[in-house]
Amino acid sequence: MYIILVYDVAPKRGAKVLKYLRQHLIWVQNSVFEGEITESRFEEVLHGLKEIINKEKDSIIFYTFDSKNYYARGIIGIEKNETDSFI
Amino acid sequence: MYIILVYDVAPKRGAKVLKYLRQHLIWVQNSVFEGEITESRFEEVLHGLKEIINKEKDSIIFYTFDSKNYYARGIIGIEKNETDSFI
Repeated sequence: MYIILVYDVAPKRGAKVLKYLRQHLIWVQNSVFEGEITESRFEEVLHGLKEIINKEKDSIIFYTFDSKNYYARGIIGIEKNETDSFI
Repeated sequence: MYIILVYDVAPKRGAKVLKYLRQHLIWVQNSVFEGEITESRFEEVLHGLKEIINKEKDSIIFYTFDSKNYYARGIIGIEKNETDSFI
């Protein structure tokens, strides 16, 4: 399945979340990741995130799709991540 | 159509982008918005954003869907925006 994940985490935990997510998904922008991942693998990622964040203060929202075909992706300004091709 | 929009904008323009987007979409978290909007209205929103951002430095990415039915939305931690119901 395909994931878009956004996080809003206090700075002291932000660096750890960023580092962790870089191992599993593709960094897109600021606190946004995308990626193709299996459901079971993603369950593991969520489990790992729960270990890092403060569930009373931080927020991680994820949108899951069966396929990238379900959405169109657009951009204005620059692509912050120029090392990966998304389109 | 339905939109998820994320932005990565220099702080001096961030407040203006935030204020502008609040008029058109629903604030979700940090620099993330969602919302149901017509295609023509969204074209206008993009036009407005282009007036605010620096296209050489800032980045706004948007995902458009025909319907919210195309994705599942999940959260861990807290819902930062408790005034609107998304689910």
